[in-house]
Amino acid sequence: MGESARVPVGIVGASGYGGVQLVRLLLEHPAAELVYLGGDSSAGQLFSDLYPHLGHRLNLVIESIDLDQIAQRCQVVFLSLPNGLAHRMAPELLAKGCKVLDLSADYRFSSLETYTAWYGGERADQAVAESAVYGLPELYRERIADTQLVGCPGCYPTASLLAIAPLLKQGLIASESIIIDAKSGASGGGRQAKTQLLLAEADNSLGAYGVARHRHTPEIEQICSDLAGHDVLVQFTPHLIPMVRGILATVYATLRDPGLTREDLFTIYSAFYRTAGWVKILPGGIYPQTKWAAGTNLCYISVEVDPRTGRVIVLSAIDNLMKGQASQAIQCLNILMNWEEKLGLPNLCFYP
Amino acid sequence: MGESARVPVGIVGASGYGGVQLVRLLLEHPAAELVYLGGDSSAGQLFSDLYPHLGHRLNLVIESIDLDQIAQRCQVVFLSLPNGLAHRMAPELLAKGCKVLDLSADYRFSSLETYTAWYGGERADQAVAESAVYGLPELYRERIADTQLVGCPGCYPTASLLAIAPLLKQGLIASESIIIDAKSGASGGGRQAKTQLLLAEADNSLGAYGVARHRHTPEIEQICSDLAGHDVLVQFTPHLIPMVRGILATVYATLRDPGLTREDLFTIYSAFYRTAGWVKILPGGIYPQTKWAAGTNLCYISVEVDPRTGRVIVLSAIDNLMKGQASQAIQCLNILMNWEEKLGLPNLCFYP
Amino acid sequence: MGESARVPVGIVGASGYGGVQLVRLLLEHPAAELVYLGGDSSAGQLFSDLYPHLGHRLNLVIESIDLDQIAQRCQVVFLSLPNGLAHRMAPELLAKGCKVLDLSADYRFSSLETYTAWYGGERADQAVAESAVYGLPELYRERIADTQLVGCPGCYPTASLLAIAPLLKQGLIASESIIIDAKSGASGGGRQAKTQLLLAEADNSLGAYGVARHRHTPEIEQICSDLAGHDVLVQFTPHLIPMVRGILATVYATLRDPGLTREDLFTIYSAFYRTAGWVKILPGGIYPQTKWAAGTNLCYISVEVDPRTGRVIVLSAIDNLMKGQASQAIQCLNILMNWEEKLGLPNLCFYP
Amino acid sequence: MGESARVPVGIVGASGYGGVQLVRLLLEHPAAELVYLGGDSSAGQLFSDLYPHLGHRLNLVIESIDLDQIAQRCQVVFLSLPNGLAHRMAPELLAKGCKVLDLSADYRFSSLETYTAWYGGERADQAVAESAVYGLPELYRERIADTQLVGCPGCYPTASLLAIAPLLKQGLIASESIIIDAKSGASGGGRQAKTQLLLAEADNSLGAYGVARHRHTPEIEQICSDLAGHDVLVQFTPHLIPMVRGILATVYATLRDPGLTREDLFTIYSAFYRTAGWVKILPGGIYPQTKWAAGTNLCYISVEVDPRTGRVIVLSAIDNLMKGQASQAIQCLNILMNWEEKLGLPNLCFYP
Repeated sequence: MGESARVPVGIVGASGYGGVQLVRLLLEHPAAELVYLGGDSSAGQLFSDLYPHLGHRLNLVIESIDLDQIAQRCQVVFLSLPNGLAHRMAPELLAKGCKVLDLSADYRFSSLETYTAWYGGERADQAVAESAVYGLPELYRERIADTQLVGCPGCYPTASLLAIAPLLKQGLIASESIIIDAKSGASGGGRQAKTQLLLAEADNSLGAYGVARHRHTPEIEQICSDLAGHDVLVQFTPHLIPMVRGILATVYATLRDPGLTREDLFTIYSAFYRTAGWVKILPGGIYPQTKWAAGTNLCYISVEVDPRTGRVIVLSAIDNLMKGQASQAIQCLNILMNWEEKLGLPNLCFYP
Repeated sequence: MGESARVPVGIVGASGYGGVQLVRLLLEHPAAELVYLGGDSSAGQLFSDLYPHLGHRLNLVIESIDLDQIAQRCQVVFLSLPNGLAHRMAPELLAKGCKVLDLSADYRFSSLETYTAWYGGERADQAVAESAVYGLPELYRERIADTQLVGCPGCYPTASLLAIAPLLKQGLIASESIIIDAKSGASGGGRQAKTQLLLAEADNSLGAYGVARHRHTPEIEQICSDLAGHDVLVQFTPHLIPMVRGILATVYATLRDPGLTREDLFTIYSAFYRTAGWVKILPGGIYPQTKWAAGTNLCYISVEVDPRTGRVIVLSAIDNLMKGQASQAIQCLNILMNWEEKLGLPNLCFYP
Repeated sequence: MGESARVPVGIVGASGYGGVQLVRLLLEHPAAELVYLGGDSSAGQLFSDLYPHLGHRLNLVIESIDLDQIAQRCQVVFLSLPNGLAHRMAPELLAKGCKVLDLSADYRFSSLETYTAWYGGERADQAVAESAVYGLPELYRERIADTQLVGCPGCYPTASLLAIAPLLKQGLIASESIIIDAKSGASGGGRQAKTQLLLAEADNSLGAYGVARHRHTPEIEQICSDLAGHDVLVQFTPHLIPMVRGILATVYATLRDPGLTREDLFTIYSAFYRTAGWVKILPGGIYPQTKWAAGTNLCYISVEVDPRTGRVIVLSAIDNLMKGQASQAIQCLNILMNWEEKLGLPNLCFYP
Repeated sequence: MGESARVPVGIVGASGYGGVQLVRLLLEHPAAELVYLGGDSSAGQLFSDLYPHLGHRLNLVIESIDLDQIAQRCQVVFLSLPNGLAHRMAPELLAKGCKVLDLSADYRFSSLETYTAWYGGERADQAVAESAVYGLPELYRERIADTQLVGCPGCYPTASLLAIAPLLKQGLIASESIIIDAKSGASGGGRQAKTQLLLAEADNSLGAYGVARHRHTPEIEQICSDLAGHDVLVQFTPHLIPMVRGILATVYATLRDPGLTREDLFTIYSAFYRTAGWVKILPGGIYPQTKWAAGTNLCYISVEVDPRTGRVIVLSAIDNLMKGQASQAIQCLNILMNWEEKLGLPNLCFYP
């Protein structure tokens, strides 16, 4: 494919960690060309002033946000903004013919009622929200291929849902028994300077946050309910881990059939994900390290059964900024554009 | 109390992390005097050759292990050895009149059957094992005061049991619903060089281990059963966190009375631990950081209720090498010797 | 000494890392009593709202800053403020009879010209500045005992000067050859949220900053010149290390007499610091780990000679927040008040 | 280029960190095909048993080392063994027609006398050693293109020499004034379990090692002398940093012409490295973070001048396992095989 044929792509909100991942991935994407970076507070700056290590590869200036301009120059737009901003831009960009991939929470919910209950604010774009597809390709590949607007999943929901989906879809667990104990590196908190994310505060320590009220809870529940065919509530507890990247979700549930073995579940998971090239089911007794997924679009999963308690324990590891955010958005782009799903997506970490 | 009145104390197995914590604490203990260090592989070496930072405070040579010698010179002996060794020494030391505090798993179980099922080996000291008291002072203070042999708790069980005890003791939860998702710093793996504990392997990453089969499970279950008055099984999953010290136990259970609030449970926990100076119940919405407990004998606990799911979530943070190991052993020593319980025990971390 | 006899002490600017260290140390100081905490942005808050782990030990509210009040209630005042604020308060507090220990740069320089050249601002308190004593007890113990105002050293200068002092004082090195390559944990950057100090930015990475222009340079040079008896310039380069606490200064200089051995220098350093209980000279070939000094007032020093190049290499490790800041200020307090120098000062780390 | 055209390549000593980097890079190399993995202690194991994250990409078994076999199946052989083993294999492999890239110290020295003085052992392969080319392409590209045997540089020498080469080559510094203060992540110590490399020991701490006697000293000196045209001694001090990957070399030297500015040196460095695509000279005042180079073959360099002292300070950042080891070996392979130098070499990190 010649340079001339590459599809022009833009990013609004490029200065954060989601933005810099997208930039990095698009710089090496064979079918897309990064032509626009937009931001408000950083408008006028070279992107490489924010990220000097990119100085030798990228010469773009961050521009102030002008939707007309964007729609003229970009066929596809990534919105990588704080929650509550995308819904002010997406409808117009869609109307002007752009395809839109939103990395915030704005288009993850089919019901605006649920959105505003957990995120606040007022919204009047129910129809647009309903047209959005939840960008988890392992579950919704066909619908993504067919949409103009993707609501890209949160990092915790990605790790959690990939872990739990086969169980719920096949009715193997008591759906009220789901507990997700999740652990994330500090980059999940973004690049805004916050005291609790300082190295001096967060390093060499560990704590939970948002217990029983984290906003990723209803997102997980919405998809779990869709998979189960009835309303599902989950217990979700996030923890901040003293590392940069990575999420591990440890998921507990009670098996309906206590006779199921680890080997049975390995077979079931392998079958469920047989067409999902990015999900790797590990052999029995091998548990994933988050760093195996670092810098890749991979999700490593282990399934364990405790015959003493009748529970299944699923471990799911991703890179929160990649499969949990930016590379998953590129995966959606590939599907949306009918490109090979693996284009531009790294699938080997640098270990250790 | 004059120097001359100090009680002579020895440590067998001083070269590991448990040993060096005991040494450090005993050096500042006003009523005990460290007079003996024993070890096999390191016999003949100055202790400060292993830990040069102690060179200005300690001039003891590690001696080979001679039980006669030890019993002659020490009134109290700490055994800080790998599992399966203490039971070869304790009976003789007890017979010679020493008080013994064992930091291994050897004397944590009243039933040798349970011990050998999980730890292997053969044992013939059932009577001695039955005479041992489980060294968790917040639950068994009176019995500790009265014994000659203390089986000091494991690090995970300490954090887990302090979190769960009030709920079980008062019958507030469905006892089959207990899930303990625990996270530990790498010092919990000891000082023996193991590949998976190398900084290059374990740093900037996160993983579970021993899922559904970790040896601290039966230890937790034994005490839970004692508290509940009937057999209790728990789901216990440990994780290795890229930090040096600290354990956080995140404990989930289903409330029998879903109307109980966070405030109710704060009151119940505060009452339960009102005489336990080392357990601090945090105000609602404040979750403990493990580093708050670093270098102290403290356990910080938060209790949260999720009214949506009817579950209680308890967070419990300790220093795995202190309250989870060495300082708890000193706390037991203080009780055993009828000293003030707080002697020589740090209760303020250096933050951050 | 009874409670009633304890000297009332206050801290202005208590909310930062310097403040919380002072609070922690004063809570366990046998001769001082913490009676006042002052701050502007945090006035009205409980100190334990900022640092919940102290909730069980401290019930003080941060008060707005009123110098009259402070002078009435406190015999000694610690100023722990950003540079450029202490000199607006210290003269009045001194006039009202308080003893003042300033942890900022304001009173480290006898010449206000040097101060303003590196720190900016305008000052008219030259006489007060001249009356201040540089609070490095190992070099200026007698003068500290005799002053009303102590300018406590910076963290890097403390580590650097203790490393270099014996060499300069005894004319053993070419004074123009001094290079100080210093490394600090992230807590040295304070508790204000800055992007470059986020865990996600600073962890798993390493970089220099302030090369050839860091403000600690003239401070080091001032004392080096005083020791040498003539003007000395040094090359000073700080680096940010992905850890919370600790400074290591690696100091290079050319020996005037290339025949001097490591053993000679060990003897010279041991003699120089024979009355300095906090400086520990390590045996040949043992190099300090910064964590040996963590949470203590200790400075560990190694001296090495390279006969191939004729250089001496000195390694000096401290806790930047303790000997590099707060515990050194307490050490000065002890001297100032004519108390035992070791009162309330930890001298054993928790290893590992 | 079709699969069939790819050059068969083998690795002897594949189980360590150097090996796994080579494997990872070769798996994505468009012109080379990994056909053989050899090892002694791990022979018979699947490589993915050692590194489970590679299970989905690699199905090779580690074979015992048989030089005949290797030479038959491989056109190029990487030796990634502890020092002192490669010289027992390389002569035979060369004689059988293989090209050999050795990652150990065995073929870094043209003089076996120097080698044995620092590394010990006995060697009789002086002629082979003299035929080897030092694999630093930025300095010896032409000679690498022309050799059958490459002695790949050490990690510290790579960072140090790239920093110092322009200064020495152009006679800009007093060559006796060179001081290299180097800092490395823990993966530099390899994958063998050593106590001092445990996370519990090395994390949250910092120390020097091998002061005035590290084996990379003569390697740096050999190349410095070659560049300067006369014998050069350097002062080299390595430090262990609590992070996984990365080296920062902070290099000090006295300028012969104190009038040279930072801008002058930026120009000189840019010109020196104008054909070196992997060396990036940063704009004035921007200092490299080691993580900018992580997972890439890049070296980021800053040059700073201190007009007060007349010194130049050069900062040089690489990934110790990539440009400092494996990716540099692949770069040499590309040159040796007359392929495009950039084949299969990553040049963008994942930040943060």
